Amino acid sequence: MIRHYVIGNPIETDSVVMSIPAEEGEIPGFTSDIAAKTLRCRMDCEDVVYGLGETVRGMNKRNWLYISNNTDDYMHTEGKHSLYASQNFILVFSPQRAFGLYVDTPGKVIFDLGYTDPDVLVIDFDDFDANLYLVQDSTLSGIAHEFRRLVGRSYIPPKWAFGYGQSRWSYRTAEEVKTVADRYLEEGIPLDSIYLDIDYMDHYKDFTVNEQAFPEFADFCTKMKKRGIHLVPIIDAGVKIEDGYDVCEEGKKADYFVKDEEGNDLVAAVWPGKVHFPDFMKPETRKWFGEHYRVLLDQGVDGFWNDMNEPAIFYTEKHLSQVFRRLDEFKGQNLDIDSFFEMVSLTGELSNNPEDYRSFYHTYKGKLYRHDKLHNLYGYLMTRAAGEAFRKLCPDRRILLFSRASYIGMHRYGGVWTGDNRSWWNHLLLSMQQMVGLNLCGFLYSGSDMGGFGDDTTEDLMMRWLEMALFIPLYRNHNAKGNRFQELSEFAHPERFRPIVELRYALLPYIYSEFMKAALRDGMYMMPLAFQWQDDRRAVETEDQLLVGESVMIAPVYRQNAAGRYVYLPEDMKLLRMRSWKDYDEIRLSKGDHYLRAELGETLIFIRKGHVLPICRPAENTASLDYSTIHYVCNEGKPENYELYNDDGISAVTDLQDHILK
Amino acid sequence: MIRHYVIGNPIETDSVVMSIPAEEGEIPGFTSDIAAKTLRCRMDCEDVVYGLGETVRGMNKRNWLYISNNTDDYMHTEGKHSLYASQNFILVFSPQRAFGLYVDTPGKVIFDLGYTDPDVLVIDFDDFDANLYLVQDSTLSGIAHEFRRLVGRSYIPPKWAFGYGQSRWSYRTAEEVKTVADRYLEEGIPLDSIYLDIDYMDHYKDFTVNEQAFPEFADFCTKMKKRGIHLVPIIDAGVKIEDGYDVCEEGKKADYFVKDEEGNDLVAAVWPGKVHFPDFMKPETRKWFGEHYRVLLDQGVDGFWNDMNEPAIFYTEKHLSQVFRRLDEFKGQNLDIDSFFEMVSLTGELSNNPEDYRSFYHTYKGKLYRHDKLHNLYGYLMTRAAGEAFRKLCPDRRILLFSRASYIGMHRYGGVWTGDNRSWWNHLLLSMQQMVGLNLCGFLYSGSDMGGFGDDTTEDLMMRWLEMALFIPLYRNHNAKGNRFQELSEFAHPERFRPIVELRYALLPYIYSEFMKAALRDGMYMMPLAFQWQDDRRAVETEDQLLVGESVMIAPVYRQNAAGRYVYLPEDMKLLRMRSWKDYDEIRLSKGDHYLRAELGETLIFIRKGHVLPICRPAENTASLDYSTIHYVCNEGKPENYELYNDDGISAVTDLQDHILK
Repeated sequence: MIRHYVIGNPIETDSVVMSIPAEEGEIPGFTSDIAAKTLRCRMDCEDVVYGLGETVRGMNKRNWLYISNNTDDYMHTEGKHSLYASQNFILVFSPQRAFGLYVDTPGKVIFDLGYTDPDVLVIDFDDFDANLYLVQDSTLSGIAHEFRRLVGRSYIPPKWAFGYGQSRWSYRTAEEVKTVADRYLEEGIPLDSIYLDIDYMDHYKDFTVNEQAFPEFADFCTKMKKRGIHLVPIIDAGVKIEDGYDVCEEGKKADYFVKDEEGNDLVAAVWPGKVHFPDFMKPETRKWFGEHYRVLLDQGVDGFWNDMNEPAIFYTEKHLSQVFRRLDEFKGQNLDIDSFFEMVSLTGELSNNPEDYRSFYHTYKGKLYRHDKLHNLYGYLMTRAAGEAFRKLCPDRRILLFSRASYIGMHRYGGVWTGDNRSWWNHLLLSMQQMVGLNLCGFLYSGSDMGGFGDDTTEDLMMRWLEMALFIPLYRNHNAKGNRFQELSEFAHPERFRPIVELRYALLPYIYSEFMKAALRDGMYMMPLAFQWQDDRRAVETEDQLLVGESVMIAPVYRQNAAGRYVYLPEDMKLLRMRSWKDYDEIRLSKGDHYLRAELGETLIFIRKGHVLPICRPAENTASLDYSTIHYVCNEGKPENYELYNDDGISAVTDLQDHILK
Repeated sequence: MIRHYVIGNPIETDSVVMSIPAEEGEIPGFTSDIAAKTLRCRMDCEDVVYGLGETVRGMNKRNWLYISNNTDDYMHTEGKHSLYASQNFILVFSPQRAFGLYVDTPGKVIFDLGYTDPDVLVIDFDDFDANLYLVQDSTLSGIAHEFRRLVGRSYIPPKWAFGYGQSRWSYRTAEEVKTVADRYLEEGIPLDSIYLDIDYMDHYKDFTVNEQAFPEFADFCTKMKKRGIHLVPIIDAGVKIEDGYDVCEEGKKADYFVKDEEGNDLVAAVWPGKVHFPDFMKPETRKWFGEHYRVLLDQGVDGFWNDMNEPAIFYTEKHLSQVFRRLDEFKGQNLDIDSFFEMVSLTGELSNNPEDYRSFYHTYKGKLYRHDKLHNLYGYLMTRAAGEAFRKLCPDRRILLFSRASYIGMHRYGGVWTGDNRSWWNHLLLSMQQMVGLNLCGFLYSGSDMGGFGDDTTEDLMMRWLEMALFIPLYRNHNAKGNRFQELSEFAHPERFRPIVELRYALLPYIYSEFMKAALRDGMYMMPLAFQWQDDRRAVETEDQLLVGESVMIAPVYRQNAAGRYVYLPEDMKLLRMRSWKDYDEIRLSKGDHYLRAELGETLIFIRKGHVLPICRPAENTASLDYSTIHYVCNEGKPENYELYNDDGISAVTDLQDHILK
C-alpha cells in the first residue's frame, strides 16, 4: 500500500506515474518539525536502511549522513556525503516493521541515518516542500515492487548493451578505435561495444564529430557494426558558445538556455571552455535538444551516455574574474597557513561551486526558479529529453542510454553508470554494494567502470572486477587519461582475461532473462540476501553477497591477494567454482558458513535450491550467441520450469510472455 | 645470516649498526641491470611479500608498486604509491624459500612487486647506489630478528605513552585543554596525555609557547601532570624566518640551514609562512636543534611529536613568484579543458613539488648533496637530533618521541604515527595492516590516529577503532580542524566508550610486557599469522587478524554495521568476547573457521594454547594501575610461566631480566 503526504508546496517532478490522493496528518512513525524543516523517526537497534541509489558505503546505509545534491566529485571515498545522483527512496526494516519512504523534492535533502545520534533517523530539507510516499508491505520485495509501480517501468536497453564494452577517455581517432577492436579479436576476447569519450567531437561540441580524427563517421560506424561492435558516443550537458554552431545559435534564438541574474544566457565553462546550459525544465527545450541526437543516430549510432549533467561547472565567467582579482591581492605577501590555503582554495573552489548554482535560473510553467531549488533534476531531464526523442525518432527500436547524474523518474528513460570511480579494491566492493540502492530506486540497467576509472589498475584487480561484475547489466571497462592502459589486451597476460569475459557471454541468456523479467514485472534484478530471508539476521547482515534473479547468488573475491573467501548460505545451495564456462566444479553445500577457495581466475557462483542456471556457448559478441547450445546446471530445479526469455534484442518490448521460450 | 652487497657508491645513512664486509657478485636470486638501474627477481605464484613499513594496501604488499619517496599526502587511498616514510625492508617468502632484503639508499626507490608483471619483482633506483643486505633464515621470525639486530634496538617510550591520548588540531588555549581533561574525568574515561598541535606555539615558531593562550606554561604542565596527564607538543621541521627569533638567528649565523642554488639559505614556506630548513645532515645542526627541545623539557614536557619533516613544503619563494606570473597569462582567456586544468594545477602543484626538492642542498662530510638525493633521511635525522639530545639532556629518563617522516635507523630514536589518515572504515583496517610493515622495519612504537584525522567520524567507527587498536602501542585519538569533534566525551553516548578505554588499561600489563620483550630482544610485537604458521596457507593468506606478543591473537570488526565476523584459527584457541574488562564470555574454539558475533561494544580477543593473558583492574591513568589486581585468563598455560614485565615506566632500561616480576 502506498500513502501520499504533502509538505509545503512542492514542485511537480514527474518522477511518479501514479496519482494517489494526499492524506492529512503526520506520516506514521515520523514527527515533523516545520521550523527545523525536519522529519524524525526513532530507529530500533536492529533497523536496517536500504536505498539512496549510488551512494558511498555499504548496502545498509545506517550510521552515515547522505546529502542529495548531485555533485561531480571524482573521489568517492567513505567521507563523502554526495555523489552524482539523488535517488531519495529509503527502505527501513527490522523484524518488527518495514516501510519504504520516497522523498520527492528536487532540492537538497539530508538523510541523517544515525550519524548525529545512532538511534535517530532525521530527514532535513533545504526547502520544506515535498511529496512523500510511504510504501507499506509485509515483505521487502513487496515494498520494492509497490514503489516501482509508483514510479513506473524501468528502462530497457538493447541486448547488445549487456555485452562487454571497452572505453577510455579517450580514443582520439577512428584508427585507435579500430586497433582496440583488432586487439580484442587477436586475443579472442568477446566485445560488443567501444565507447567514444569527449575527444570524438569537434572541439567538444555536442552532436558534432571531429572529421579529421573520424573521417566518414557513418561509414566507420557501419563497418564496426558489421564486426558486431557498437560505437557509443558521449553527450555533454553544456553547449559550446560559438558563432555558427547550430546548437548554440538555435538555443540562443529560441531562448532554450538557463539565465543568469541579469536575465542573459548564463556563461559557464566545461570542456570547450564557455558554454550555455539548456533549460531542460522547459518541455520545448527537451524536445529541441532530444531531436539533435538524430545527427548521430542517422550515422548509425545506437547508444549514448549523457555526462556532466549535474551539471558540472568548471567555472562561471563571473566567478572566474573575481578569482583573478583576488589572486592579485596575495602577490608579494608572506603566505602563511591562513593566507596560503585561502589563496589555493580560490582556484580549487572554482568548480562546482554552490554559489554558482544559486546564480542562475530555470523557467518552469512560466515561473522562474533558481537553479539550486531544482538542482537534482537536471541530469534526469537531459536524459528524459533524449529518451523522449528516441521514442519519436525510432519508436520500434531500443537505444542504449545512460547518464551520470540522475533522479528517480529518469530510470524510465535510461540507466546510470556510477561516474568517476577509482582502481581501488574497495571500489570493486562498493560498485557491487551500489547495485542494491540502484535496483531499489528503479535503476536496473546500471554499473560501474570496471577496473576503475581513475588511478592505475593491476592485472589482478582487473580480473577480480570482471569476475565480480559478471552479472552486472552494464559491463564496461573504462579508464581515464594519464592512467595505465586497461584494455584487457594490453596487460602482461591477456589470456588470463579471456575465460572471464567468455563466461559473461555464457551467462547472458540468464542475465537477459532475469533482467527483462525484473524490468517488465517491476521487480529487483540484483538484491541483498534480506530480500529472500528477511528473518535470518545473518542473511540481513551479509553485505558482500548478492542475489541475482531467481536462481543465482554471487559472492565475489574483492581483496587483493586473497585466494578465497567466506560465504554465508541461508539455505543449501550448489556452488559452481568456475574457471571458464565449461571448466567448473559443482559442489553441494549446506546452509551455513563456508570458507571457499577461489584463486585468481576462479569465480564462485551459487545456484539456489529448486533452481537452474542456463549456460550457453560463448561467442565473439551477443549477436552471435547460439541459444541452441544452452545447457542447464540444476540444483533440484527443472529446466522446463525456467522462464527463459529472448527476443531480437532491439525491438521495443511490452509483453514479457511473448518472449518466453518454451 | 646477513650478506652485504654494495651497488655503486652509496652514502652512509647510519641506519645499520653492524659492520658486515661486502661480498662481490650478484645477490642470490636477483639479476641486476646497471643501465636500467634495476634489480629483478622472479616470483612464484605462492610468494608473499611483507615489509615496506607504513605503506597503503594489505599486509602482503604483492601486486602493487611502492615508491620510497617521503611525501606529505593527506589522501591515503589505495591508488597512492608513497606516504610519509621510506622503510625499504622487504621479506619475501613461500613454502620454497624465504629471505629479507634491506635496500639502504636515501634517494627514490621503486618497489614494483608484481605491478607491471605479476610474476616479477623489480627494484628500480633513481641512483644506482645502495647498500643491500640479504637476510636469510629458515623462519620468518628468524629473518625479522636478524634484520633487527642489523639495524639496532628499537626505541622505547615511557610507560604513560601506552595510555589513552587525546589530540586535536588544535586545542588553542590552556583552558580548552583543561576542559578536555575535565570532560574525560566527568565521563570516567581514563586519559594519560593530551597533545598540543601547532596552535600552542607563538606564530608557529618551534620551541616557543603562545603566552596569551598558554600563560604560565610550566605551571600548567605541572598541574596537568599532577592529574596524571602529560602534554605532548608538536615540533615542526621548518624554522620561521623572523628577526629576533633565536632559533632562526642562531641557525643563520652558524650556517645550519639548507642552501638554495645560489648558496643562500633556502626560503620555503610552511605554517608560519617563510621558513628556513635545518640541514640535519650536519652533526652540528642536529646537536644545536636537539638542544632546543630543552626549552620545553624544562617546563615539564616529557613527550614530543616531530611533524612536517618529509619535509613538507607549501611553496618555495621562487616557485610562488613564477606561479603568480603565469597566472596572469590566463586572464581574459576562454579557459577550456587544457588551459583551465593547467591554470588550476599551478596553485594545486605548489606544495611538495618535486622541482623544489631538486632546488636545494645539504652539506655532508664537507660535500654538497642535492636534497632529492638524500630526501628520505630528513625526518629520520630531525628525530635523531631530538633523540640524541634527550640522551644527553635527560640520560636517565625516557622521553616520548615520534615522527611523521621516517627511514629505517630512526626506529632507534623514536616511533611513528601514520600521518593524516581519515575517518574511513577502510583506514581502520589499513591502520591494523600497517602494523606489520612497521614492526618488521623496527618501528614498534607506532600507531594511527584513532577515529581518523581527516573527515567526520561516527560513533560506531570510533568505537570499533578503539576496539581494533586495543593492543596498538600508540593509542591516540586525533582529529583535524573543521571536522566533527571526536573527543569521546562529545558523542551522543560517551558511556559507550568507557568500557573500551578501560579495557585498554586492563590489558596494559600484557601490552607493556610484550612490547618491552619485543624491543629488548629484537623481536616482533605485532605480527601476521604467518610468523607462527608459515606452512599453513590459510594462516598466511589471513590479512585481517594479527598476533600480539606470545599469547594473543586479535580479529577486529572493521565494517560498518557488522555485528560479527569470520575468524580463522590455525590452532585451538580460547576466545574472550569482551564487553568490558570484567564482563566477558570465555569460549573454547577449535582450529578452523568460525563466524563469531561481536556486536558494537564487544571485542574479540583470542588466547593461544599454552598461554595466559594478565588482566588488571583499570585506573584513570597508567600511573594508577595496581598490578596486585591482576588476574590471569588461561588457555592451558600457567601464570607462573608468564614473564610479566614492569618497571618505573620512566627510567632508561637496558636489561630485561631486571624487570621480570616473579
